[in-house]
Amino acid sequence: MQDKIIEVLKKEIQTDKEQDLTEILKDYRNGSIGIVQLNPIVGNIEHNANKIVKHIKLAQKIGLETIIFPELALTGSPLEDILTRYSFLADECTKWINEIAKITTKTTAFVGFIEFHNNIYYNSVAILKEGKILEVIRKPYIPKYLDSKELTPTKYEQNKNIVQINNKKYGIIIGEICFENEIEFSQKPDIIINFSALCAKIIQECDFKTKLTEVSKKYCAPLIFVNQVGAVDSMSFNGGSCVFDKKGKLLANTKYFEEQFLIVNPEKELGRIYQTEKNINNQKQQEEFSLDYEKDLERTYKTTIQGIKDYFSKTGFKRAVLGLSGGLDSTVCAVLLTDALGKENVLGISMPSKITSDTSKNDAKELAQNLGINFTQVPIKDMYEATNNTLQGLFNTIEQNWDCRYKQSYTPDNIQARSRAVILWGVSNEFDKCLPIATSDKSEAYVGYATINGDMSGGFAPIADITKTKLFALAKWLNKNRTDKNAIPESVINKRPGAELAIDPKTGKPLIAEDALMPYEFLDEIIWRIENKKECYSDMINSEFLYEKKNNISKEQKTQWLDKFYRRMAGALYKKTIFPPAIIVDTKTTYKQPITSSSINYKGHTEEEIQKIIEKI
Amino acid sequence: MQDKIIEVLKKEIQTDKEQDLTEILKDYRNGSIGIVQLNPIVGNIEHNANKIVKHIKLAQKIGLETIIFPELALTGSPLEDILTRYSFLADECTKWINEIAKITTKTTAFVGFIEFHNNIYYNSVAILKEGKILEVIRKPYIPKYLDSKELTPTKYEQNKNIVQINNKKYGIIIGEICFENEIEFSQKPDIIINFSALCAKIIQECDFKTKLTEVSKKYCAPLIFVNQVGAVDSMSFNGGSCVFDKKGKLLANTKYFEEQFLIVNPEKELGRIYQTEKNINNQKQQEEFSLDYEKDLERTYKTTIQGIKDYFSKTGFKRAVLGLSGGLDSTVCAVLLTDALGKENVLGISMPSKITSDTSKNDAKELAQNLGINFTQVPIKDMYEATNNTLQGLFNTIEQNWDCRYKQSYTPDNIQARSRAVILWGVSNEFDKCLPIATSDKSEAYVGYATINGDMSGGFAPIADITKTKLFALAKWLNKNRTDKNAIPESVINKRPGAELAIDPKTGKPLIAEDALMPYEFLDEIIWRIENKKECYSDMINSEFLYEKKNNISKEQKTQWLDKFYRRMAGALYKKTIFPPAIIVDTKTTYKQPITSSSINYKGHTEEEIQKIIEKI
Repeated sequence: MQDKIIEVLKKEIQTDKEQDLTEILKDYRNGSIGIVQLNPIVGNIEHNANKIVKHIKLAQKIGLETIIFPELALTGSPLEDILTRYSFLADECTKWINEIAKITTKTTAFVGFIEFHNNIYYNSVAILKEGKILEVIRKPYIPKYLDSKELTPTKYEQNKNIVQINNKKYGIIIGEICFENEIEFSQKPDIIINFSALCAKIIQECDFKTKLTEVSKKYCAPLIFVNQVGAVDSMSFNGGSCVFDKKGKLLANTKYFEEQFLIVNPEKELGRIYQTEKNINNQKQQEEFSLDYEKDLERTYKTTIQGIKDYFSKTGFKRAVLGLSGGLDSTVCAVLLTDALGKENVLGISMPSKITSDTSKNDAKELAQNLGINFTQVPIKDMYEATNNTLQGLFNTIEQNWDCRYKQSYTPDNIQARSRAVILWGVSNEFDKCLPIATSDKSEAYVGYATINGDMSGGFAPIADITKTKLFALAKWLNKNRTDKNAIPESVINKRPGAELAIDPKTGKPLIAEDALMPYEFLDEIIWRIENKKECYSDMINSEFLYEKKNNISKEQKTQWLDKFYRRMAGALYKKTIFPPAIIVDTKTTYKQPITSSSINYKGHTEEEIQKIIEKI
Repeated sequence: MQDKIIEVLKKEIQTDKEQDLTEILKDYRNGSIGIVQLNPIVGNIEHNANKIVKHIKLAQKIGLETIIFPELALTGSPLEDILTRYSFLADECTKWINEIAKITTKTTAFVGFIEFHNNIYYNSVAILKEGKILEVIRKPYIPKYLDSKELTPTKYEQNKNIVQINNKKYGIIIGEICFENEIEFSQKPDIIINFSALCAKIIQECDFKTKLTEVSKKYCAPLIFVNQVGAVDSMSFNGGSCVFDKKGKLLANTKYFEEQFLIVNPEKELGRIYQTEKNINNQKQQEEFSLDYEKDLERTYKTTIQGIKDYFSKTGFKRAVLGLSGGLDSTVCAVLLTDALGKENVLGISMPSKITSDTSKNDAKELAQNLGINFTQVPIKDMYEATNNTLQGLFNTIEQNWDCRYKQSYTPDNIQARSRAVILWGVSNEFDKCLPIATSDKSEAYVGYATINGDMSGGFAPIADITKTKLFALAKWLNKNRTDKNAIPESVINKRPGAELAIDPKTGKPLIAEDALMPYEFLDEIIWRIENKKECYSDMINSEFLYEKKNNISKEQKTQWLDKFYRRMAGALYKKTIFPPAIIVDTKTTYKQPITSSSINYKGHTEEEIQKIIEKI
């Protein structure tokens, strides 16, 4: 019997040491707990219930005392406004909980779900045992759009956060432990469980593990943090479920970014600690901008891979098509897509124009060969010419009435980018479950250095939250750390980026992005200062940039770059609204600004300036 | 002197009866109040301060006792996350308030602004008089992204909402009066002022005027509601500032949708009531879906016109270019753009393909002539052929590796829509301050019956919150109510809509949208039921639709349409992320749903079904 259980466990549980299993199973009768770090699909109750039931049955089979699932396990999180559009969902949840309860045996199951009770939505945890719902612990749940309008939720019900089962008192915390000011239990719990659906960026924001251990120490009780894993659109949940003993010492944890079934026995201090990924949630807030991204690249890689994987699998897409320009952005995208979706599901298309260099064409081809992805080349010459001819004739007609034609325009440049997007969307229309990829990176998205309906266009944007200097580091890291070493051609990493849409009149060669914008090192430091230091224009004028330390640049040059950045950032606001979902990797806080506020004066005024302005009114 | 004042007033204040003016001016020394229904640009302090100072100076010139501006007049609202990115803004506000105070004389000015005080952001009203800041009334302001994290704001400071100036007690309410549970003043105010920046849809949601009059009656004091006007991206602020006497009777109001300077004397019961636009904020919640849109069309028209006007002027755009297909959507868009931007700033381009009928071409041309807008025609034949040839060759190559090519695809249809978008964006690139318009309507946007990077593409979407059946009514209304009668050709209103992208194999004629989807009347009722009744699939199966009452359709037919709607709506989630800003006209609540929740089962399950599913796991 024991052998058979070990076999099942080996197959279905992510653990490999037979020693551990034997030890755990010896003790499972008293105090053993299965922790399910679940990757749900938001709103797809049937899908989530299927996983929950499978895990409960497994827990029963191996005789665990308890099995726990994350907050809102049955619905997934965040629900956004789903409960208002699919108003039956809360009822549906209750039906499923009732039916799941019926299959429970001696193993107690704690399942997070949405409950509509006394006309209020609750973020609840149901406790199921021996065919019944023993108890429901409730925390008011405020659907986003109802926020502060239709509901006046009751306060967090402190007197109901202790549940006794078989002489053991469970202290229940639902939701964001790090933002609760004070956790209060009416009685001393024997064990504390924090049911969570906390996304990675929130965990990173607060000193999360310290908060957890404090609670554990305060009540002198072991604490289990069980969290959701997986990506929901842009949001990344990396899991990080863990167990502390009553002294606040780490007893067990899960792997990050994986749906996992972890078995522990906090009473007997049995558990397993994964040592591998120290840098996932413990990034120290840097004091200074630095190009040394090394320590953060594994997290960046795994966040992006999970983001792509889950976006595709949860929306029903399977294949990705992208333009391969031979440049850094599309190259890194291709590698990440290959690792996330499998090489057979990735199609790279080289779409050269007359400006495209031979190096770029060769780099694209070499990359595709190294990755083993599908690859083809199609020139855009005919499309470009037909479009340009149509447009130039049209422009001449329009010009007769509108005297606002630019003497120099980006139109021909952008025709190339847009023709390429038409090709990618065409492939998406013609082949099943195929989504085009927007390859813009964060540095360029910030300043709108990208073409609407061109390289900004796609169904998903994998690297739009990774700056260019970090992408260079990531490219090198990928060459070193992937099983297939050096898939990215050296010349991609060594050349200076440029869109190859236009010729620089000064050099007669394709325009280099840094010549048109500013050095990426400088640009990325501006972004870093805005996001991490909350600096504004005048702060940055007075700060010393890394680039300034290394290079001798004038005050005028710096001011010019900063002005260019702020002007472009404001001008890019309207472009951003039509940008596809991007995986949040680095952004600490989602930022929203009305597009119609783009005329904001980023420099501010002195008292004297204001006086003078008012005098003139 | 009095004559001169009247002259100034006539020029600068929206009032036309000399009688009124003389009366007001006779009494202005005691208790006269200027109410400025301001249209600010969010974040553009200098712009807003300029307007504020101008109005203060005018009020001084004509000797008003008091002048009041809306909540957050200096910054505009909503600020979204601006305060975190432009962290100097709160300081900047304080500097401006200090300097504005210096120019004040005997006329007391109440100006809403953002204040950073004791490490908390406040939504404050500064009271300025005789060169000084007399007082600041504060309400904690929680920047969106800080919400519940970094700040624990103090409660609304009830003891500080009474201010005494010249023996008169002002009761101050900042913000959303309709959501305040109870307004409490420590002393009886002589007059109550509610400083607001309330958008139209929130005002419509609650029985707003009743709430206001209740407060007025409770304290037996006149009440002034001063509100922001103007559009901020998708949001419409329609103003509706008004004054009630101490018995709660309407004494004065502003015109909707206009920046206006209204002068009243509540003590002497002097004011002016505009009678014109009764239906703007008093729409009764309909009990049943109806095609009788008549009463709501003026509001719809004005909301849209303001939305276009403000989006363009506040972002710095001036001209609009759109494709004129001869269909209803682009036709109505063209009319609205003409009225909002002026005919000289609108360019309609007819871009026929081989499927385009002569009627469509003629209708487009006739419309343009009627409107007097710029018009040209350019066939997309060459672009289409070059693209189709490029794609078909490419597809044959791809097919060798990917065996997932559709037997029938929408690719050729969509090439047409996308070629047109490439033309429009090209025009936008070539001509100064010119923005392409996305012409999709609400019915089609809901079910994704539109082409990504095609007709869904543009910088702004004027009619994306107006359903098709309402658009038909609006078209007829426009023909009747605009100065230029019957600008829209009859045949546009009489023909059945279709994108003219494909031939219907059944008829050999261009595909009719209702044949591909379902009757618009039915489709629009589904949308109405979701948004107004919060009905879900099973509710609708059991409801009787207007279309059912008029036509004999089978249960199967109804189920098929509902299924099609829900499947398409879920599938359209990813399309919506790349849709440009649309003016909110009818949507009661902004709706957000994770794209990765598109596999949601919209039908729900019965207990029996759930049991069977669980048994099989």
